[in-house]
Amino acid sequence: MLKKIDHLGIAVKSLAEAVPYYEKALGLKCEHIEEVPSQKVRTAFFACGEVHLELLEPTDPESPIAKFLEKNPAGGIHHVAFGTDDIQAQLEQASGAGVRLIHDKPFDGAGGKLVAFLHPKSTFGVLTEFCIPKPGTSTH
Amino acid sequence: MLKKIDHLGIAVKSLAEAVPYYEKALGLKCEHIEEVPSQKVRTAFFACGEVHLELLEPTDPESPIAKFLEKNPAGGIHHVAFGTDDIQAQLEQASGAGVRLIHDKPFDGAGGKLVAFLHPKSTFGVLTEFCIPKPGTSTH
Repeated sequence: MLKKIDHLGIAVKSLAEAVPYYEKALGLKCEHIEEVPSQKVRTAFFACGEVHLELLEPTDPESPIAKFLEKNPAGGIHHVAFGTDDIQAQLEQASGAGVRLIHDKPFDGAGGKLVAFLHPKSTFGVLTEFCIPKPGTSTH
Repeated sequence: MLKKIDHLGIAVKSLAEAVPYYEKALGLKCEHIEEVPSQKVRTAFFACGEVHLELLEPTDPESPIAKFLEKNPAGGIHHVAFGTDDIQAQLEQASGAGVRLIHDKPFDGAGGKLVAFLHPKSTFGVLTEFCIPKPGTSTH
């Protein structure tokens, strides 16, 4: 079952430009900045209620975020991640309803989570992730 | 102060196609469907934790959502609305930090809320709304 929106992944060209906007204009607090080599991004984390905003800056032209920014030069929301209590059941439910999956098994994502993505062709234009904390892991 | 993400506005071509995806593939429950003539949309509301997902189907080619769908035919996230405890102070903070505003005063939005939007040129590609329940109004 989907419990909440865990985070929004937001593509930005430059953390140096975007972090001050989220801090000064919106009044949110940057909790930490982390490099995620597997996704070729640097990520700045902000909490707002139960949702995290994750600003994603590409560290390499081959990063999925660099490709998103080629199509959306201003930046924008790259994906929505739903927190679930059972990621495998959630994938099976989606698949059973005819949704294409990018991953039919969850894998290790950033921040000590297991994650899996639905195929964007199936999700009405919203790149959709399911995620769950790995057992025994404390997450930011 | 921003308290939470109140809702995500998600542009869809057809509620008849998208609502079953959110219900059957994601397991969320459609709470109600409402026409918002001022925005020329029909909206389907889903709750996920403290956030609402609002699917927005244009009812007229002049709807802002129809224009969004011309650029993004698959649909996608149209805007992010932050719930605040003081919308005027929030607008002043943003303006003071150099952000262009679409509205410098809040106005009546859907669902018994006061709302105001920041100018998308100032928000790194994320169309951003502030909202707050109108005094004495119970919201969905």
